[in-house]
Amino acid sequence: MRRLGENALIAEILAPLATHPGAFGLSDDAAHLSDLPPNGLVMTTDALVAGVHFFENDDPGDAAYKAVAVNVSDLAAKAAKPFAYLLTLALPAAPTEDWARAFAEGLARAQAAFGVSLIGGDTVTARGPWWLSVTALGDAPARPLVRGGGRPGDVLYVTGTLGDAALGLKMRLGLDDFAGALSADETEHLARRYLYPEPRVSLRPALAAHASAAMDLSDGLALDLTRLCTASGVTASVDASALPLSEAARSAVAACPALIEAIIAGGDDYEILAAVPPDTASHSLAFEATARDAGCPVFRIGTLAEGASPPAFLGPSGEPLILSAKGFEHFAL
Amino acid sequence: MRRLGENALIAEILAPLATHPGAFGLSDDAAHLSDLPPNGLVMTTDALVAGVHFFENDDPGDAAYKAVAVNVSDLAAKAAKPFAYLLTLALPAAPTEDWARAFAEGLARAQAAFGVSLIGGDTVTARGPWWLSVTALGDAPARPLVRGGGRPGDVLYVTGTLGDAALGLKMRLGLDDFAGALSADETEHLARRYLYPEPRVSLRPALAAHASAAMDLSDGLALDLTRLCTASGVTASVDASALPLSEAARSAVAACPALIEAIIAGGDDYEILAAVPPDTASHSLAFEATARDAGCPVFRIGTLAEGASPPAFLGPSGEPLILSAKGFEHFAL
Repeated sequence: MRRLGENALIAEILAPLATHPGAFGLSDDAAHLSDLPPNGLVMTTDALVAGVHFFENDDPGDAAYKAVAVNVSDLAAKAAKPFAYLLTLALPAAPTEDWARAFAEGLARAQAAFGVSLIGGDTVTARGPWWLSVTALGDAPARPLVRGGGRPGDVLYVTGTLGDAALGLKMRLGLDDFAGALSADETEHLARRYLYPEPRVSLRPALAAHASAAMDLSDGLALDLTRLCTASGVTASVDASALPLSEAARSAVAACPALIEAIIAGGDDYEILAAVPPDTASHSLAFEATARDAGCPVFRIGTLAEGASPPAFLGPSGEPLILSAKGFEHFAL
Repeated sequence: MRRLGENALIAEILAPLATHPGAFGLSDDAAHLSDLPPNGLVMTTDALVAGVHFFENDDPGDAAYKAVAVNVSDLAAKAAKPFAYLLTLALPAAPTEDWARAFAEGLARAQAAFGVSLIGGDTVTARGPWWLSVTALGDAPARPLVRGGGRPGDVLYVTGTLGDAALGLKMRLGLDDFAGALSADETEHLARRYLYPEPRVSLRPALAAHASAAMDLSDGLALDLTRLCTASGVTASVDASALPLSEAARSAVAACPALIEAIIAGGDDYEILAAVPPDTASHSLAFEATARDAGCPVFRIGTLAEGASPPAFLGPSGEPLILSAKGFEHFAL
């Protein structure tokens, strides 16, 4: 089985992905971007480590796809249009050609899905689990969109459905008391949602035109909404019964009601949380219409309010839910 | 001893380093650069892993400084002016406050030395040795400077002195037969050159105005010159006796002549290798004058020539030296 050194890995496997002229076919140590977008650049970086962000026995192409997708998700939440990324890949030893080709196939899939090109990077040796780090670039919108722009009275929206990836992860970990209540399609759905995030790039026009604040949900709605509120200097109340759930998640929560906590505090959703000024022709109704036209499902889940207390999640009779899980934090103490 | 979780590490230790307005004080998941340089951006990324690129018992601030410096070196070799960087930091567990402050002190030192600001990043958990990855941004020069621009007849230059870091590394590894021949100042010099790369940012105006090709020397002159020649479609001949050596390296080679191989093939120099069209008022002589005015020492070491053979290193009587070491390659086979 042929193994690839650093030079062969770059020249044979990665260089064909570097279609942007500023990448110089990965023959150089820096990329040169000469045509910059008129409103500036949005940049983000996220690393994924085997055994932490994905399973060591996952297909390397799935990990590669996910690394690009989670970065694109951060750009999408800022109403930026992704166009390029840099990649750092750390491996304990020279990869086999099969491994390298599977890895590159995942990058190629992400490039096609999100319209991005590899423009540079680094390959290094690492003892321990393999990891990869992506830095992604996007065209900035005319008006920067940040976490801190939310105001009291703004309507809170989320895209897609929540909690699927967290339930998919529970199944991977064998914490799947609920799996017996699910159909084969439903378990497959949850597994896929953990492996293949779908960044909501189609929400960009709606966000750019109407949102006051936005971020993607990567560490769970509870923690990420707290971050949005803190940055905006507000609090929030969320109607837990309004949270959008997939059929699979509904079946799981019906079988085991405590799973609502995994829905609210579980990570890896990569859906977008947005605050939009309240109902007028130019605001939340227009946001909904623009999102609908773009084929991106959005759901009202609550509102922002004055105050500094943590966001409240309200049950069916308006009573606050007490959550024990707070979302994902690296090296939590 | 207080330990810091992810949120405290970002808010208390790293956010004060994010002085660029587009960093939003690290309160967001993406940076927004609105004022982009007129000639475009140069971007590069390099990761450093404990046990591979630095010693696990090195001061964390020195590793942080080196990570920024090696990226700035890549920008300097492209005649780009560094201004910002993103940082990914992977730790096996929550750091102590002392560790985190020492780490940030190294970043602050690099920021002051190179005029850069932290604009974003990621912090993750990693089993195994700790690592960090930096993506650096610089203002592009009017004319892109790449590896592949060299032409037959161009004069080859290097900055500073070669091989010091490789000798410093040998001392750290206990492979220091030569150390007895060195003064205390000389051993100190080699140790420092391994720990603290000094990117040649002052060479920027000379490179921008005159060089046909340039790159920084990170994997050893032999391998990096081969890369420049391959990209430019030329070969080169280098006069080994013209290679600039520090007093310390001279003492080491005098004691142990075989060390010339470590000088030629050793990594971590972070000096610049440049090709400049031959002597006319507007080319190599002007390059030397501009470099001298900027306080950056440059030395002619050889010339580019037609051909596709590997670069030749010529001994005192013009005979080719036979090198056994070829420079540093990750996962060499």
